[in-house]
Amino acid sequence: MKRLIGVIGGRECSPEICNIAYQVGKLIAQNGFGLVCGGRSGVMEAAARGCAEHGGLTVGILTGEDKSEANAYIQVAIPTGLGIARNILVVRAAEGLIAIDGYYGTLSEIAFALQLQKPLVGIRTWNVEPEMPTAQSAAEAMEKLLQLMP
Amino acid sequence: MKRLIGVIGGRECSPEICNIAYQVGKLIAQNGFGLVCGGRSGVMEAAARGCAEHGGLTVGILTGEDKSEANAYIQVAIPTGLGIARNILVVRAAEGLIAIDGYYGTLSEIAFALQLQKPLVGIRTWNVEPEMPTAQSAAEAMEKLLQLMP
Amino acid sequence: MKRLIGVIGGRECSPEICNIAYQVGKLIAQNGFGLVCGGRSGVMEAAARGCAEHGGLTVGILTGEDKSEANAYIQVAIPTGLGIARNILVVRAAEGLIAIDGYYGTLSEIAFALQLQKPLVGIRTWNVEPEMPTAQSAAEAMEKLLQLMP
Amino acid sequence: MKRLIGVIGGRECSPEICNIAYQVGKLIAQNGFGLVCGGRSGVMEAAARGCAEHGGLTVGILTGEDKSEANAYIQVAIPTGLGIARNILVVRAAEGLIAIDGYYGTLSEIAFALQLQKPLVGIRTWNVEPEMPTAQSAAEAMEKLLQLMP
Repeated sequence: MKRLIGVIGGRECSPEICNIAYQVGKLIAQNGFGLVCGGRSGVMEAAARGCAEHGGLTVGILTGEDKSEANAYIQVAIPTGLGIARNILVVRAAEGLIAIDGYYGTLSEIAFALQLQKPLVGIRTWNVEPEMPTAQSAAEAMEKLLQLMP
Repeated sequence: MKRLIGVIGGRECSPEICNIAYQVGKLIAQNGFGLVCGGRSGVMEAAARGCAEHGGLTVGILTGEDKSEANAYIQVAIPTGLGIARNILVVRAAEGLIAIDGYYGTLSEIAFALQLQKPLVGIRTWNVEPEMPTAQSAAEAMEKLLQLMP
Repeated sequence: MKRLIGVIGGRECSPEICNIAYQVGKLIAQNGFGLVCGGRSGVMEAAARGCAEHGGLTVGILTGEDKSEANAYIQVAIPTGLGIARNILVVRAAEGLIAIDGYYGTLSEIAFALQLQKPLVGIRTWNVEPEMPTAQSAAEAMEKLLQLMP
Repeated sequence: MKRLIGVIGGRECSPEICNIAYQVGKLIAQNGFGLVCGGRSGVMEAAARGCAEHGGLTVGILTGEDKSEANAYIQVAIPTGLGIARNILVVRAAEGLIAIDGYYGTLSEIAFALQLQKPLVGIRTWNVEPEMPTAQSAAEAMEKLLQLMP
């Protein structure tokens, strides 16, 4: 079974945040994992691109009813039709997660990850201290996450 | 159609927090609203009790598959079997919400309420500034919430 | 806690089917139960009207994100935003169900009711023999359902 | 993006039915598709095995909260925690579906597939005429399904 790391973040991102997300996706692939995310634009797309372009598997769990809402780098699209109730599914599908930037949807996913005691590292995202380790770069986040994962 | 106010908070509460939740439930009933919550123990039970004991309708949207998990003050039990994916349903069913204390589940509900732009007031709960008004008592919370609701 | 009987059926109905649904709703109220349904038009609306006009509580578990999609006779609206994934919630919320006419959505609810071993009686609906008792009138259906309910 | 065909059927199967499911999975892989199913035992396991052993991608959308409930041939596990509300997700994730044997859970999935107008072929399963084409073998089912798929 493919081991999946989740990337959570907003549907829009600055060039700098997008680059971090891309690097995170690249590192997920290079460490032998697949990526799971919400399948849409912004952080989700940049991370999926980074993963897919380095040979990693990408899974997108979508809010809508149709696969066409997935970004171009999603290989396995799961259109749920559940709206943002799908946020918990992204968290459950991941062994560990990296949160990058993001807004309220990302906060709900951080909350679920903490509730389910999933390994989680944040990069420039919501500050939910003391439980949530943070990192300043993709490399630092991946290193910290791998230490937290069993 | 019954207008519903949501109360979100943890499954355990101190006597002081339980009393605040009870007062919130009482005020919901006295202002002519029904109450919707997660239907379980702690803040949910205290608020439902306050509402039911003052003639208000109480709705509990449950995580599990069986009505028996509802607390004794829930009049309309909706056992979803969806686990914590039901959190978003509590938020959607409410016209406005009061968050009291709570832990990660409550944080996920606060995040969803902010994402859906629902009127929301917090009492001794997660600090998600600047978007979220706070109050120190049940009466202040209800007053602020009613001002925010259309 | 209010005991709820579910009514499942299509979003459109002939005058004859609508009348049967209305009578079922009326009997639900007269027997001291509340009604739960999908909250929309057709069979759901006719049954909710029959229940509400005879003093019964009506609960509508909606596919969409907004209470405005509920019919005019729903007193407690639960907008799930889950799309037709909400079908299972209607079944879970009911102690027993009456299926009237309907199409594929109704068939999915019949299937879930049988899977969960809920008491279920059908009126002019899908034929899923031998497990599913049927009736020709609202009165016969209610009588059979009450015999099946604990 | 990987194109997925869904296989729906029961958690238990006779040797004959298991063999048909295995052949269906094999044909899915040999025709260049991935397989999506409920991820558990019986028909789901036999089909996933057939697909995986012939180089196809296998996706399991699980009822429970944990990947460990997936059968040994699932490569991408999506533990939803939604219980049987996940049935609709299996249907949505598939471009077309083959139903094999099965019981009430399978009937709910057939109903959803028909409601969503997904291409669907049944082998020795529920008889929902006239809408649902049937086949006597894995090869016939795949041939009919591919003709129905755009």
